[in-house]
Amino acid sequence: MTALLSDLPPVTRDLTPLFDPSSVAIVGASDDPGKYGNWLAVRALRGRRPVHLVNRSRPTVLGRPAVPSIAGLDLAVDLAVIAVPAAAFEAAVDDALEAGVKAIVGITAGLGETGGEGRRRQEALAARVQAAGACLLGPNCLGVLDHTSKLDLTVNDFPVGDIAVLSQSGNIAIDLAAQMTTHGLGVSRFASIGNQADLDVADLIESCVEHDGTRAIALYCEGFRDGRRFVSAALRAHQAGKPVVLLTVGRGTASARGAASHTGSLVSSDVVVQAACEAAGAENVSSPSQLADLLQAMVRTRPPTGKRVAVFSDGGGHASLASDCLEAVGMRVEEFPEALRKAVATELPPNATVANPIDVAGAGEQDITCFTRVAGHLVASRDIDAVVMTGYFGGFRDYSDELAVGEVQAARDIARAVAERGATYVSHTMFPQSPAAQALREGGIAVYRNVETAAWALSRLGQWAAREPHGVPQPHPAANAVTQAGYWSARMLLADAGVPFVAAAEVATREELRIAATALGFPLVLKALGDEHKSDRGGVVLGIRDQEHLERAWNDLQDRLAPPTVSVEQMADLTDGVELIVGVRQDPSFGPIVLVGIGGVYTELLRDTRCALGPLDPESARALLLSLKGAALLTGYRGKPAVDIDAAARLVSTVSHFAAAHTEISEVECNPVAVTPRGVTALDARIILAR
Amino acid sequence: MTALLSDLPPVTRDLTPLFDPSSVAIVGASDDPGKYGNWLAVRALRGRRPVHLVNRSRPTVLGRPAVPSIAGLDLAVDLAVIAVPAAAFEAAVDDALEAGVKAIVGITAGLGETGGEGRRRQEALAARVQAAGACLLGPNCLGVLDHTSKLDLTVNDFPVGDIAVLSQSGNIAIDLAAQMTTHGLGVSRFASIGNQADLDVADLIESCVEHDGTRAIALYCEGFRDGRRFVSAALRAHQAGKPVVLLTVGRGTASARGAASHTGSLVSSDVVVQAACEAAGAENVSSPSQLADLLQAMVRTRPPTGKRVAVFSDGGGHASLASDCLEAVGMRVEEFPEALRKAVATELPPNATVANPIDVAGAGEQDITCFTRVAGHLVASRDIDAVVMTGYFGGFRDYSDELAVGEVQAARDIARAVAERGATYVSHTMFPQSPAAQALREGGIAVYRNVETAAWALSRLGQWAAREPHGVPQPHPAANAVTQAGYWSARMLLADAGVPFVAAAEVATREELRIAATALGFPLVLKALGDEHKSDRGGVVLGIRDQEHLERAWNDLQDRLAPPTVSVEQMADLTDGVELIVGVRQDPSFGPIVLVGIGGVYTELLRDTRCALGPLDPESARALLLSLKGAALLTGYRGKPAVDIDAAARLVSTVSHFAAAHTEISEVECNPVAVTPRGVTALDARIILAR
Repeated sequence: MTALLSDLPPVTRDLTPLFDPSSVAIVGASDDPGKYGNWLAVRALRGRRPVHLVNRSRPTVLGRPAVPSIAGLDLAVDLAVIAVPAAAFEAAVDDALEAGVKAIVGITAGLGETGGEGRRRQEALAARVQAAGACLLGPNCLGVLDHTSKLDLTVNDFPVGDIAVLSQSGNIAIDLAAQMTTHGLGVSRFASIGNQADLDVADLIESCVEHDGTRAIALYCEGFRDGRRFVSAALRAHQAGKPVVLLTVGRGTASARGAASHTGSLVSSDVVVQAACEAAGAENVSSPSQLADLLQAMVRTRPPTGKRVAVFSDGGGHASLASDCLEAVGMRVEEFPEALRKAVATELPPNATVANPIDVAGAGEQDITCFTRVAGHLVASRDIDAVVMTGYFGGFRDYSDELAVGEVQAARDIARAVAERGATYVSHTMFPQSPAAQALREGGIAVYRNVETAAWALSRLGQWAAREPHGVPQPHPAANAVTQAGYWSARMLLADAGVPFVAAAEVATREELRIAATALGFPLVLKALGDEHKSDRGGVVLGIRDQEHLERAWNDLQDRLAPPTVSVEQMADLTDGVELIVGVRQDPSFGPIVLVGIGGVYTELLRDTRCALGPLDPESARALLLSLKGAALLTGYRGKPAVDIDAAARLVSTVSHFAAAHTEISEVECNPVAVTPRGVTALDARIILAR
Repeated sequence: MTALLSDLPPVTRDLTPLFDPSSVAIVGASDDPGKYGNWLAVRALRGRRPVHLVNRSRPTVLGRPAVPSIAGLDLAVDLAVIAVPAAAFEAAVDDALEAGVKAIVGITAGLGETGGEGRRRQEALAARVQAAGACLLGPNCLGVLDHTSKLDLTVNDFPVGDIAVLSQSGNIAIDLAAQMTTHGLGVSRFASIGNQADLDVADLIESCVEHDGTRAIALYCEGFRDGRRFVSAALRAHQAGKPVVLLTVGRGTASARGAASHTGSLVSSDVVVQAACEAAGAENVSSPSQLADLLQAMVRTRPPTGKRVAVFSDGGGHASLASDCLEAVGMRVEEFPEALRKAVATELPPNATVANPIDVAGAGEQDITCFTRVAGHLVASRDIDAVVMTGYFGGFRDYSDELAVGEVQAARDIARAVAERGATYVSHTMFPQSPAAQALREGGIAVYRNVETAAWALSRLGQWAAREPHGVPQPHPAANAVTQAGYWSARMLLADAGVPFVAAAEVATREELRIAATALGFPLVLKALGDEHKSDRGGVVLGIRDQEHLERAWNDLQDRLAPPTVSVEQMADLTDGVELIVGVRQDPSFGPIVLVGIGGVYTELLRDTRCALGPLDPESARALLLSLKGAALLTGYRGKPAVDIDAAARLVSTVSHFAAAHTEISEVECNPVAVTPRGVTALDARIILAR
């Protein structure tokens, strides 16, 4: 955690020996066609580089001379791929380092992923690699490939292209490559990241930022060694104009297990990854197909700067369907202004629909150039932000040879007009493998088989482009560690940090209660302390109006719960107010995660919460609050006055800085926080210390 | 509306002349290869039936004799397809009827869909068709096809299979057929429903219920002539074991435009269609791909009876991904009990993961029969409700010829075990077109290319099977129509119907106010009447505690709003209560739609509302309330007592029967309704009369 909180700038490691080595050794090369060392050697030998085969017991492999150890080679070797049995792996790495190898790909499994002793040995090995000035990919990985340097040290085929694929699973990488192929996309580099003993996903992203052949980065990652380094690297890629799309697993509640507070249970691993992506300008998807679908839009389509979409169809059904799909993802299909309607109408027969959605109503069969002409009006219009062409286009070739030629020409002409105007244009066709669809893709237009996918990708593209990634905030560690976690101590620590609370006193006796009540004034609240589930167990009495009521409440609490002490507090005036939950959870990989939500019973029932990497400045906290579904409750809903959002944002910022400074605290929570038009007050506080 | 509310049983029309005619006439047959009458004639002539060509001006068409009018044929003709210019269409229909034709397919467009006069003439034409004892498909349709009777009167190719496709769009039908083809599914019948002038979607569904060659029904419908007849027909299909899946458009807010109440604005067209599908046991999807994906599961997979899924993978990435996808759609991937874990472990190498998800960890390459053996344990287990096999299976053929053969055999063996055990088993593979995937499909196992789709389809299948469709409730019209719509009149009408309200009085003067206040007792509520937006405009004063407060509130209302009258009401005790919204909107096609929701500001912000076809009995109303996302608020949340759900359900039922009996009312609403542990009370009421 400490390293993660430092202000050190990221160091970009030179991975040339990994992706473009001058020579390669295959350690564990084999003649056995059932072995990885065979498959790798066969493919390595197809390349243009010198390849040395290493086999402990055989003088020849694949009909070529082999040496028993890499140290036995006279020549310097840049990269060693090690595919030997687990028991021999560490010795093989040490041999390679001794021979001056600069990069190692560890295929062998059975080390760090077995936990405990294996993990300790893996860490020691990585330290030796680093001390030697080398780098290690894996172990437990499937190899590396770079089409731009003609390096292929994998066992699967990847289509050539400009997307870097960094994956912790071989099968997911194959899946992804297949999905990309249907979109005419391919791979610049592939790295199987394995156990990330030395090189982690952040290092590999950094190297792709520098790599000319890579235009975007596709990432499948099951675990982040250092989440904030990932955010930092992904943000660098984003700023370099290289989109990063991330697929993770473990979206469920695994990370929330063992959480003690509501905040803890609400900050699940998917929420943390989402917060990290928002900080990095990366996009987080939930399947290989989504990853490929979004990447296609990112590399082909100019992001829309607004939500007004023209639907351009050659059939009423697809026109309506596209409109529905677009509206379902938050885009708008509104009637065109008259000038545009008229312009479109001049290109189409009278039975066509031209108001948006456009239905050319059979005009395509009569004159395929109507597509080009209508598209010309659409891409030139300032009244729309994007065009979705949907339906049959691509299938007109079945009508006649003339239409087949004309259709491809129309596709090229549309693509040219889109490029010239810098327009946002995506297409759906039932015939995605047709020559016309191919011409659209070649011209730089994203093509989807399903219109809901086209709509989704367009919308996500717009959301992505509209983000202002705030990067990795740097917490400043506090001088003194927190050691007490009770309610009263949490309240005082947070009040000291600047969180406003109502006036209160901790009392142990009836006499102290009376004095405190007199000092504070009615109405009052009593809270039985010594039990962190006080509200669930009836340990909180609200709205105590007078002395008699106070006595009754005190007696009842003593009878039922016999608390060691009681907190007596002024009752906050909640008129026109909204309850919030504000909390921070320390994530082992991503550090402090700030959570805000609309509170009360809805917090858990409806999960109207949002998270961000902490700490947050008040401005970012305000933006987070306003991104809640129920934000309208804060800004003044149905005639109610707006609450003091700035004060709430300051409170969130204060809590986030406090938590980020205290990594010994695993969870901090103010729940509820009352925010009214008159200000903000925390009504409860909780601190959970890390075990 | 009146017809729809009748108790008449649906009449199944004999559509044999449409789907299996003894002879066919093509009216408007043409030699011009750019014309529909040409395409239809060419395809019709390929069939086995006598085909007669009719052309007004040419003695031969396609080298065969043609007659100028269908009446000119000596022979009786069962079915006439009419593809003539719009101006000649009605005369051609009349000619056909005169010649004794029993079924007509109207291709010609330009009649009912143009509205106004065209619609009137279309209605008259349909009446003439019915009077002649014939039936009419269309007009403005694309034809009809029945692979079981070898009838093809369309212009597109549809793969042979056992799914009936009824579609209001030709392109959507083509799209759908292509999507079905990728799943190895095909079409039994296709009918293009067009304007539904005579035969509507309900008639066509009814005919498919009787049709032996049809196993399921895929429906694309843009508008329902009579929504309740659709529900009735779809329910019959459901009860006959023929699943119905519906794709509609216009999911947006179109139908909600012009709504006066909250209920009105919340009952959008997608909500109405969803309610109709729930009543019918049909499933409502949002794209052609979803339709095909769900149909595949429906015709191949036994619905799961629970949510416990075994994930069976050949790679860690897909194992985790499948688990995430399943949990995201509400299924559960839980650790296996020890016995099952051990049984699975006996079939796999020690590095395999066997606790769920299962990762065979490379065992497939070594011995492909491990898939069959593990699957055998899974389908025999009572501890799981479904299996999702995911990942690489289908791709092992690339390793060796032996594996290629073994993989197909494994697929067959798995399919046999699934069938024998009656298990629920779906699969995802990166190689959906592989021989092994094909063998899975042939053996009756649904195969998907994307694991999120497999998870979604499995979950939807389970939801569908768990529904208890309640069919079409029959409203009983009231004797007297409602003509007054003010607050006080709405309150009295609903109170008469049995809706509990707090005691109240309508007063116009300070003197009347004083008398009423004395009779009712404090605390009180004042509502300024004469304005239906009273709460938005500050016309409601809550919590009036005493005479002085009452005077002040009265003066303030008079000063600001000068209402003609004021309602003075007892203030309800809302302790431990929940606010509900209860309303009914008359839909022009589907009749009374009942809406319930958790009320307060959340109604609109979070849209926690549910709808059903009305009227509802108290039991159905209770089920609807309990299907709300916030149902936990009703059943006792975090230590709070449960509210009186039965009383709330009775109120919903009462309001629904009242609204259903009064079709002159377009919207009825009680908002809020307070339901507490002590009972239920409506706190406001509103009636909007139909214009």
